[in-house]
Amino acid sequence: MTTTLITGGTVVTATGRSAADVLVDGEVIVAVLAPGSTLLGSDLARTVDTVIDATGKYVIPGGIDAHTHMELPFGGTAASDTFETGTRAAAWGGTTMIIDFAVQTYGQQVMDGLATWHDKARGNCAIDYGFHQIIGDVNADSLKAMDGLVDEGITSFKLFMAYPGVFYSDDAQILRAMQTSAETGLMTMMHAENGPAIDVLVEQLLAQGKTDPYYHGIARAWQMEEEATHRAIMLANLTGAPLYVVHVSAKQAVEQLAAARDNGQNVFGETCPQYLYLSLEEQLGAPGFEGAKWVCSTPLRSRAEGHQDHMWQSLRTNDIQMVSTDHCPFCMKDQKELGLGDFSKIPNGIGSVEHRMDLMYQGVVTGQITLERWVEITSTTPARMFGLYGKKGVIAPGADADIVIYDPNGHTSIGYDKTHHMNMDHSAWEGFEIDGHVDTVMSRGTVVVDDNAYVGTKGHGQFVKRDLSQYLI
Amino acid sequence: MTTTLITGGTVVTATGRSAADVLVDGEVIVAVLAPGSTLLGSDLARTVDTVIDATGKYVIPGGIDAHTHMELPFGGTAASDTFETGTRAAAWGGTTMIIDFAVQTYGQQVMDGLATWHDKARGNCAIDYGFHQIIGDVNADSLKAMDGLVDEGITSFKLFMAYPGVFYSDDAQILRAMQTSAETGLMTMMHAENGPAIDVLVEQLLAQGKTDPYYHGIARAWQMEEEATHRAIMLANLTGAPLYVVHVSAKQAVEQLAAARDNGQNVFGETCPQYLYLSLEEQLGAPGFEGAKWVCSTPLRSRAEGHQDHMWQSLRTNDIQMVSTDHCPFCMKDQKELGLGDFSKIPNGIGSVEHRMDLMYQGVVTGQITLERWVEITSTTPARMFGLYGKKGVIAPGADADIVIYDPNGHTSIGYDKTHHMNMDHSAWEGFEIDGHVDTVMSRGTVVVDDNAYVGTKGHGQFVKRDLSQYLI
Amino acid sequence: MTTTLITGGTVVTATGRSAADVLVDGEVIVAVLAPGSTLLGSDLARTVDTVIDATGKYVIPGGIDAHTHMELPFGGTAASDTFETGTRAAAWGGTTMIIDFAVQTYGQQVMDGLATWHDKARGNCAIDYGFHQIIGDVNADSLKAMDGLVDEGITSFKLFMAYPGVFYSDDAQILRAMQTSAETGLMTMMHAENGPAIDVLVEQLLAQGKTDPYYHGIARAWQMEEEATHRAIMLANLTGAPLYVVHVSAKQAVEQLAAARDNGQNVFGETCPQYLYLSLEEQLGAPGFEGAKWVCSTPLRSRAEGHQDHMWQSLRTNDIQMVSTDHCPFCMKDQKELGLGDFSKIPNGIGSVEHRMDLMYQGVVTGQITLERWVEITSTTPARMFGLYGKKGVIAPGADADIVIYDPNGHTSIGYDKTHHMNMDHSAWEGFEIDGHVDTVMSRGTVVVDDNAYVGTKGHGQFVKRDLSQYLI
Amino acid sequence: MTTTLITGGTVVTATGRSAADVLVDGEVIVAVLAPGSTLLGSDLARTVDTVIDATGKYVIPGGIDAHTHMELPFGGTAASDTFETGTRAAAWGGTTMIIDFAVQTYGQQVMDGLATWHDKARGNCAIDYGFHQIIGDVNADSLKAMDGLVDEGITSFKLFMAYPGVFYSDDAQILRAMQTSAETGLMTMMHAENGPAIDVLVEQLLAQGKTDPYYHGIARAWQMEEEATHRAIMLANLTGAPLYVVHVSAKQAVEQLAAARDNGQNVFGETCPQYLYLSLEEQLGAPGFEGAKWVCSTPLRSRAEGHQDHMWQSLRTNDIQMVSTDHCPFCMKDQKELGLGDFSKIPNGIGSVEHRMDLMYQGVVTGQITLERWVEITSTTPARMFGLYGKKGVIAPGADADIVIYDPNGHTSIGYDKTHHMNMDHSAWEGFEIDGHVDTVMSRGTVVVDDNAYVGTKGHGQFVKRDLSQYLI
Repeated sequence: MTTTLITGGTVVTATGRSAADVLVDGEVIVAVLAPGSTLLGSDLARTVDTVIDATGKYVIPGGIDAHTHMELPFGGTAASDTFETGTRAAAWGGTTMIIDFAVQTYGQQVMDGLATWHDKARGNCAIDYGFHQIIGDVNADSLKAMDGLVDEGITSFKLFMAYPGVFYSDDAQILRAMQTSAETGLMTMMHAENGPAIDVLVEQLLAQGKTDPYYHGIARAWQMEEEATHRAIMLANLTGAPLYVVHVSAKQAVEQLAAARDNGQNVFGETCPQYLYLSLEEQLGAPGFEGAKWVCSTPLRSRAEGHQDHMWQSLRTNDIQMVSTDHCPFCMKDQKELGLGDFSKIPNGIGSVEHRMDLMYQGVVTGQITLERWVEITSTTPARMFGLYGKKGVIAPGADADIVIYDPNGHTSIGYDKTHHMNMDHSAWEGFEIDGHVDTVMSRGTVVVDDNAYVGTKGHGQFVKRDLSQYLI
Repeated sequence: MTTTLITGGTVVTATGRSAADVLVDGEVIVAVLAPGSTLLGSDLARTVDTVIDATGKYVIPGGIDAHTHMELPFGGTAASDTFETGTRAAAWGGTTMIIDFAVQTYGQQVMDGLATWHDKARGNCAIDYGFHQIIGDVNADSLKAMDGLVDEGITSFKLFMAYPGVFYSDDAQILRAMQTSAETGLMTMMHAENGPAIDVLVEQLLAQGKTDPYYHGIARAWQMEEEATHRAIMLANLTGAPLYVVHVSAKQAVEQLAAARDNGQNVFGETCPQYLYLSLEEQLGAPGFEGAKWVCSTPLRSRAEGHQDHMWQSLRTNDIQMVSTDHCPFCMKDQKELGLGDFSKIPNGIGSVEHRMDLMYQGVVTGQITLERWVEITSTTPARMFGLYGKKGVIAPGADADIVIYDPNGHTSIGYDKTHHMNMDHSAWEGFEIDGHVDTVMSRGTVVVDDNAYVGTKGHGQFVKRDLSQYLI
Repeated sequence: MTTTLITGGTVVTATGRSAADVLVDGEVIVAVLAPGSTLLGSDLARTVDTVIDATGKYVIPGGIDAHTHMELPFGGTAASDTFETGTRAAAWGGTTMIIDFAVQTYGQQVMDGLATWHDKARGNCAIDYGFHQIIGDVNADSLKAMDGLVDEGITSFKLFMAYPGVFYSDDAQILRAMQTSAETGLMTMMHAENGPAIDVLVEQLLAQGKTDPYYHGIARAWQMEEEATHRAIMLANLTGAPLYVVHVSAKQAVEQLAAARDNGQNVFGETCPQYLYLSLEEQLGAPGFEGAKWVCSTPLRSRAEGHQDHMWQSLRTNDIQMVSTDHCPFCMKDQKELGLGDFSKIPNGIGSVEHRMDLMYQGVVTGQITLERWVEITSTTPARMFGLYGKKGVIAPGADADIVIYDPNGHTSIGYDKTHHMNMDHSAWEGFEIDGHVDTVMSRGTVVVDDNAYVGTKGHGQFVKRDLSQYLI
Repeated sequence: MTTTLITGGTVVTATGRSAADVLVDGEVIVAVLAPGSTLLGSDLARTVDTVIDATGKYVIPGGIDAHTHMELPFGGTAASDTFETGTRAAAWGGTTMIIDFAVQTYGQQVMDGLATWHDKARGNCAIDYGFHQIIGDVNADSLKAMDGLVDEGITSFKLFMAYPGVFYSDDAQILRAMQTSAETGLMTMMHAENGPAIDVLVEQLLAQGKTDPYYHGIARAWQMEEEATHRAIMLANLTGAPLYVVHVSAKQAVEQLAAARDNGQNVFGETCPQYLYLSLEEQLGAPGFEGAKWVCSTPLRSRAEGHQDHMWQSLRTNDIQMVSTDHCPFCMKDQKELGLGDFSKIPNGIGSVEHRMDLMYQGVVTGQITLERWVEITSTTPARMFGLYGKKGVIAPGADADIVIYDPNGHTSIGYDKTHHMNMDHSAWEGFEIDGHVDTVMSRGTVVVDDNAYVGTKGHGQFVKRDLSQYLI
């Protein structure tokens, strides 16, 4: 096995930073050492196969993006990134693990749905991956199947309060699934928007000729997110299920989460870079059909209402615990264009898997979050939340050598023809400038990105079985 | 320098746990290694001077008790533990650093007060120590002197909203001191009780012949803590000062802290073991003068009102960030007895410096908190809160080798004639049984407690200069 | 026309009380006068046809019970009071107007449902009556029909978030109906319980053999009421509909209402005597099948959890605006007994229409509410809330002479064989003693109850068209 | 005695409106009658001495301004309105009673202070008046004297948390006074601003050369009002005292009041027209020294922060219960000018006693409040709050004939040379246009203003003894 010593860097954890060298042996970290490359007299730098000089740079656990949708069928098309292209783009951006969503569709057996996703991913990934399980049809069979998910290393499942007729679960189904969640320890993940009510608004807006992408944001009003969030919290309160609300965008929804947490519930919230940086007015409201690029659900929120500022604050106060991307890319051509003249037909999703680490680091540069908090919300908490900690999410002996060397003196210009490697014909983040750079990315001991080159291999990434959440109180 | 290898244990951090060995060289940790005592082929166990077998035990960063009062003059007497006896007792209990309070009395120069405390501690301590500075007389001189505290390694100061005529600051003084806090980065620590109002209640109760210790708790009603907590928060909001409220005991005060934090303020709260375990009814209300043992301020709260359960919950949700002792011991004889027939003359204080790690570990045993949270609230967060992280509060290369080996299969019976080493003629914790045991305590690389014996030396403990808080958002 | 002078009493309004005489001419009040029976020299007592001496007694506007269900088909049976028996019992108890619920069943035209209820009531009532309209099938037709309700004098409609398959509306239906409410000014009344989730719990409890009436209260957990209340509020927030939540029983639901109101929404709450006096433990949990008497939805709540005390407080603070009965009587024999061995088959309802004024007056005696508040919550606010004020709910010239003379020195023993006149074979209020007595009841100028005798006539009561709510902010 | 019949008008109460005639005999109302001027056949219009035609107009209880400061010594000068000029101006504006503040200064006996104010007012007033008692020196004597206030008809006293060295009470004093309040039933009125902290800010601003009136608003930050409001609430919670917070201007203070009230406390809030209409930016920030006109405490708040909109909302939701003026007029010349170059020397106060009824009526016109709410917040609630109801605040037999005939088709232009009758050399309300007009004002049966002429007499107004509050829950 190959040995590597990363020297001279600043190791950053969720709680602090320190000058330290990191020794990798094969796929795992075997030691974190005081800098100087010596240990009790032996010169490690001369002993190891490879030395990576991280002087002046941050050495951090690789990013974990706990919310991606590679190849997801949606609205008559499918997300444009395959596991191959998507995980490669992730690696480019310093993310060394994704947790994607296997889908049980209506009428399907849960395990069949899971198997399909294993087939999609197996042998194709640049970095490690895991699965959450979408339960698109809560019934006696699927509830029983959920008992078996833990053995499969799938320790979380997702329900939708939105999308009636597709993924939607009604409250009776949610209650039953949450009871299973409470019994098994599986984390309940929730898309919290009141779908039936939203669909009425959509229909009415279209009938009024309000067909532009902007009205996607009007139909999916914050009240509908706040309401569903509260409902999920109360059902969790009743059942004792741990609850994780995905892609939180409305400040009022955050307030519901904060109140539940202050009340002692195991309730957590994830946001995404788009809810921190982008807005209803600027992006969704862009002229013509341009706004389609940013059609995602929950939608971008009004900057005038202050959602973005409040979301940054919530990241600081830990009322929102982590940041994922909800990566679900669609090209404008042939995909987003399906919704020309009818915003409800625009495939929902933004592609960000490549840029999450950079975008959140820019929050460090601008003083929105600390360096430690950056590591916490992008890697350590995702690992803890979803049962990966120890193996992932930390620079410590025994952990997989998923390591990113990040240069605070580097620079990254995001754009379709710049740092973009996702399979999309545009970038939702065109023109964003980052005062930092992903220099080197190591996945299980193997360098996969280095010096602005992808040097990994398809199929290097492996499926990772996960434990139950390590973040519960 | 001596080298030590701690092998076979489970290293616990604030975010997780892992099997790892720890290598100590001289006073510092130089490596954390995958278990097995080998590194790239070299057998470390044979290389080092000493090997400590921690198999089946937890290896944790030494406890940091951020709130002690050794030798504090109070109410015509003085706290019964000297820095010698108090720090030795701390070591016995797995605490490897205390932050005590230097006192500027009314009319005194701040730096003179600080010098006095240096004199008390220097050469006497078993473990490392730092100081917060009590500002007992906020005036132009002391405000100016506060600018110099950072250079002295004193990065926090404490004000009192209680004790008119002694330590009390009025709101004008608090405002000025908080402005200095906001400018310098010094943490404002606050004893938050409305002293002037409480003193009226005290006078009235005594006039009614209600002189028993129990009435200490009645006079210091939760409203008076909640009110002062809110007031401190608002003054901090106005000035931008970071605020740390000491010894929080009322659930309503916690709610004020939680609301401020959800609102984005740098506001923090500390509680103490007594507010988690003991109560107004059971301890303060003990027959006769017995309750005097538990006279402290803020007072023990009513269990019927649910403060204790809520406080445990707040520890879980991080609405309360850490646990200190407010160690301020007084003997019954000649000290507590000063208040026979007049509860207001009972010296305020409970001695717990020796038992904090054990008492909080019992919360792990009973399921109130996780193992990781135990480390976080007793060591990691205290270190971050008060600018010690990196040097203290973590098991990582470069950190001081302040390490505790804790045996979850051991047992500790607390009591005056059992594990008690504090200079007190009774124990406030008599009869508490702990399902765990402090086996070995290392201070800066030197074993000071081992196998139920104190093997340290007076004067080993050094003064530690602290940085500004590393916990601010 | 007959003239009557009520002399010597204390007229009580929602804002105060004063010694005053009341002059009735025909069906209406024509003057409120300074006591003494003279006006500018003329001796009114000698002029009028009848003088009623109210010395030492309260003269109040007749009670308005805004929530009754006479003859309601439910669960395979029907409420046991007809409009004849129910309104007569109401009169006995000092209630001079009811607002009952006309029902549109699934598949039926709204106006057909309304016509049916007119048929039931016409010619049968002892006192005046109005209707709210239950919309049991929200669809394009019924939404259109709602536009016509105002002309019919029906200015409020009710939806159910409970009872799937019977009255239940889903969120899409609720949203559409609330949009109509916002446009027309019709008050949206809501039965706020999460029916789909409750039905799961019911099914599970029965499957576990938990079939006693007590489990009715367990299945309908407070979380399910709080949740639905919040959901209704958010849908009202989105649409701008005024919202009135019926039969609020959980303190957490009240907190949601209070928060919405502090936030400026037109959101109101009604409670019922059973939620102030009775409890899950004492009544629903009575031995054997006895608890069936108190099966109603929302259910009686736990006294240990403090709902009752909080509800009284909410009445004082106006976080709950009024008290109705939700009168829906069923006999034990042949009716409640349908649920022997299966609590879900017990017809839901309690009979209280006769006792509301007495039960609430007892709250005055015990100091829970003021005398003025008694009048406000039982008559004045119901009148304002539902567009009757001026005609009803007040002692003022021009108002209908619906007047109750209440004797604070009288006494009423409630019980099946005591003051009970409802068509029930038991009393849910057996054994309640009231320190007051309904002496005389006048309906539109005609005395219908006097000296413990019913002297009214069937058919005296007329249908009253109502205006839009006069209580909106 | 003279008899008057007011015919054809719409009588408005706090709960509704109705067409009714009002019969006045001497000083009191003796009947409210159905319109038509006949009673049982007798033609009242021919019987009475005077008939006033109110057709098309509102007949309302005269306004009660519960917060005025006639002739108040302040800052080296005195409020420019005497009881003569001030009450005459009040009458012009439809206010028929004021409650002014008698002052006990530091070192003075309470009853001596009260006697002084009786001397100022006696024989000089155009309308009735009462007194609250300012306790400027809470000590054993004054606490004892407070027991006697109820017999004097003074049922409320006021403390100041602001103005150290002048009216200021510290928390010990407040606590003692509130204990007396709880025992006697006297309403505690509170000027809630943290004076000691504000004085520091004032000193610092002046030292920085920030001397313009605008900085008065900066120094008296909302945090200082919110804080003091909360503190007063907690002291009231502890003691059980009923609490009335005067001149609330910050929305955050309102939120504190609302929370306390939802929690069941007898806590109330008053606002003033200036906090509804005027702002920090527009008025206090007017160029040059112009802003001095609007220097009052609490100060005008920032419109950008939304205080004014929130205050209107709070009036609607009854989180603020009533509107007074805090009338405390100072001329620019020789008075406000004292603060040229030092905002802290500008006498605090705005003159509004004449315009309150008009200004609040304009809120009816613009849809901010209902007509009934207008009557409630300007007359009925002030009467109930301060123990006047029955005698004042209502159009009902037995009440004083304090009646205003208000023409909704009239118009009032406010301005120094327009409708202004206060003894001021400017108007704080210059240019405000009101879509309504005070046509006729009757004080205890005597017309004092009619047809744009003052026809009253100095000394007509009498001192009114008040009962304890009738608004407590």
